[in-house]
Amino acid sequence: MTQTFVLTDDALPHGFRFAAVKAGLKASGNADFAVAVADQPASAAAMFTANRVKAAPLAVDAEHLARSSGSVRVVAVNAGNANCATGEIGLAACRTVCAAVADAFGAAEHEVFPSSTGIIGVPLPAGKLVAALPEIDRNLAADAEHFSAFSRAILTTDTRPKVAAAKLNIAGKTVRIAGVCKGAGMIFPQLVPHATMLVYLFTDAAIAPTDLDTMLRSAVEVSFNRISIDGDTSTNDTILLLASGASGAAVNAQNAEFAGALKDICTSLAKQIVDDGEGVTHVVELQIEGAASDADALKVARAIAHSPLVKTAWAGCDPNWGRLMAATGSSGAEIEPERIAIWLGNQQICMNGGRVPDFDEQRAHAYLRNREFTIRIALGMGKGHCQFWTTDLTTEYVRINADYST
Amino acid sequence: MTQTFVLTDDALPHGFRFAAVKAGLKASGNADFAVAVADQPASAAAMFTANRVKAAPLAVDAEHLARSSGSVRVVAVNAGNANCATGEIGLAACRTVCAAVADAFGAAEHEVFPSSTGIIGVPLPAGKLVAALPEIDRNLAADAEHFSAFSRAILTTDTRPKVAAAKLNIAGKTVRIAGVCKGAGMIFPQLVPHATMLVYLFTDAAIAPTDLDTMLRSAVEVSFNRISIDGDTSTNDTILLLASGASGAAVNAQNAEFAGALKDICTSLAKQIVDDGEGVTHVVELQIEGAASDADALKVARAIAHSPLVKTAWAGCDPNWGRLMAATGSSGAEIEPERIAIWLGNQQICMNGGRVPDFDEQRAHAYLRNREFTIRIALGMGKGHCQFWTTDLTTEYVRINADYST
Repeated sequence: MTQTFVLTDDALPHGFRFAAVKAGLKASGNADFAVAVADQPASAAAMFTANRVKAAPLAVDAEHLARSSGSVRVVAVNAGNANCATGEIGLAACRTVCAAVADAFGAAEHEVFPSSTGIIGVPLPAGKLVAALPEIDRNLAADAEHFSAFSRAILTTDTRPKVAAAKLNIAGKTVRIAGVCKGAGMIFPQLVPHATMLVYLFTDAAIAPTDLDTMLRSAVEVSFNRISIDGDTSTNDTILLLASGASGAAVNAQNAEFAGALKDICTSLAKQIVDDGEGVTHVVELQIEGAASDADALKVARAIAHSPLVKTAWAGCDPNWGRLMAATGSSGAEIEPERIAIWLGNQQICMNGGRVPDFDEQRAHAYLRNREFTIRIALGMGKGHCQFWTTDLTTEYVRINADYST
Repeated sequence: MTQTFVLTDDALPHGFRFAAVKAGLKASGNADFAVAVADQPASAAAMFTANRVKAAPLAVDAEHLARSSGSVRVVAVNAGNANCATGEIGLAACRTVCAAVADAFGAAEHEVFPSSTGIIGVPLPAGKLVAALPEIDRNLAADAEHFSAFSRAILTTDTRPKVAAAKLNIAGKTVRIAGVCKGAGMIFPQLVPHATMLVYLFTDAAIAPTDLDTMLRSAVEVSFNRISIDGDTSTNDTILLLASGASGAAVNAQNAEFAGALKDICTSLAKQIVDDGEGVTHVVELQIEGAASDADALKVARAIAHSPLVKTAWAGCDPNWGRLMAATGSSGAEIEPERIAIWLGNQQICMNGGRVPDFDEQRAHAYLRNREFTIRIALGMGKGHCQFWTTDLTTEYVRINADYST
């Protein structure tokens, strides 16, 4: 039983407290430092960007998780500065923050999980974050209001917070899962045990780190790894799943109900990211089927999702399916053009690689005026398939990103 | 001695006649049917798109060149319709045009080299092209004016014709090479023995088809295969090199002077395409060096050239070098972030993977206000290197492509 809702106090996983304050990193002056504290060390599983240039906190996270054997007490996230391409100074700044966080909340330094998002290449002002810790400490609370504050503080170019949650009954006990994420640009997460997408998932089930890891990877593969806004893979993408155990319900990787709820939450959050993409006016669900393999289906979806010509056609509500054909042809997937069929919603527009005889361009154009639409492509090669969510490319996207640091 | 110039009658390779007329395919009403006729069968070498969806004329070209063993009498190019994703009807339309062209100019059908560029997925109105042949025949002439008409008729979203030429003295004889091309969008040609880039190169040297092929591939690798506007590989990209032999000078693949002149012409035409890219306000030369291999250097150049975040930063004259780092990191090339150094022109902005201590953002910003600028990235991994030419991504690019067929 999963549903997405405005989080109530009752929906919040037990065992965690949340706070967010203004540390002075965001030019807007909005809250930019978010902290989650587990009452007891929580089991943790994490995935990071596949980009070979990784932000400083990702290196520290990997080191901390290894030392703690997958145990986290404090999650400390700043927005406004990515602490990436900052060299040794960036690593030192991250460690300074972690040490101060550990001190403030009585954790070991390697039980601190830092994250940063924002501009790349500018030194992180660690002092501002350290100075904000007393206020964080005064604000920590285990309620929906503070979880919501956390969800807003981690945002950068996002226009709204992104939250999903589920409540399950496992062996007579109530288990809660709640997730929060940010990300609106540089979104083509490729999490190889791999966003600046940041995702934090909390549950009060009792789950061992290895089981958490198995379930996280499986959920991420069909959710966050199936979205793209601009094809840029960030240096900071991070997904963290924490299990406090406070519900008293033990869960392992074989628990289909929990795994299903986790996938649903990840899919909801992934779609919320796409929906809030920079300058987005259309959200597109791609359904690729009949591929020689699932991997080939993904290649086609990604080639389409990354084609500026396809994405600009969508921005214009333009049923230019030839561009879909061109992107499919250059995807690297095994195809035979004359076997390809394409549908916009339930209107078939291409069959046997050519335009359908009764092509109704006005109807197709009208369908593409919807904010959300579905494109289905059948390749006729085999049984490989995938779902993928992406966006159009608009003049507003260009404006947002041509003005970022100036 | 190579230079680019406004073509004079004297610069035109001997043995070819040119014409262009209005066949009624372009909505603008401009000339859209261009023909070049060789007085005698010319040696030919061609390269086509690597896209698995290939336009009908490309299939016919490959078949004709195989049957003629690399001999071409007539090049027939229409703009306004790509004759791609048009199935069997498209192939039949192409053959209809070829048969009529062969008849009109006394050639065998397999000595006709057809090309099409324009919108994909719309049946080619072969009848309009056939009906225009008598006018083509009346207009054919071996002079710069008619070559220029050819260069304009093949354009689609281009804003200007693109021409380059060279004159050489080989064994006491004057040899001429002249090239013409079109292309402003869907430009990321990957010519695997592989545009909608169309390139036609003419020379009056006497060269066997195998030698022509060797020299063409070599020239294309460092020119047309080193440019990208939007990362979309067209279904129609074609490069054709014809040698009439009319100069009486025999040239083979070992002739360094001819090979050099051909490379220079190809590089000039490739840069002209980038410079005329859709909505382009900045032309960027990437110099990647210190890569583990030349292939790795190309991976980095392509990742940067295809990153919407990098390209939009350029549109804003924004020295956001962190985006260059992010694209480099996700390129798939072997890198160590802390070894990376980056220069904008002669200003170093990044060393050891971090911002230089005395980073002068205003100076960097001022440099990026130039229409043309150079970015050099040293990876510190080895001796691999490449040059690559690309463009920014502007709101105007989005406007042009969101309005294409509507």
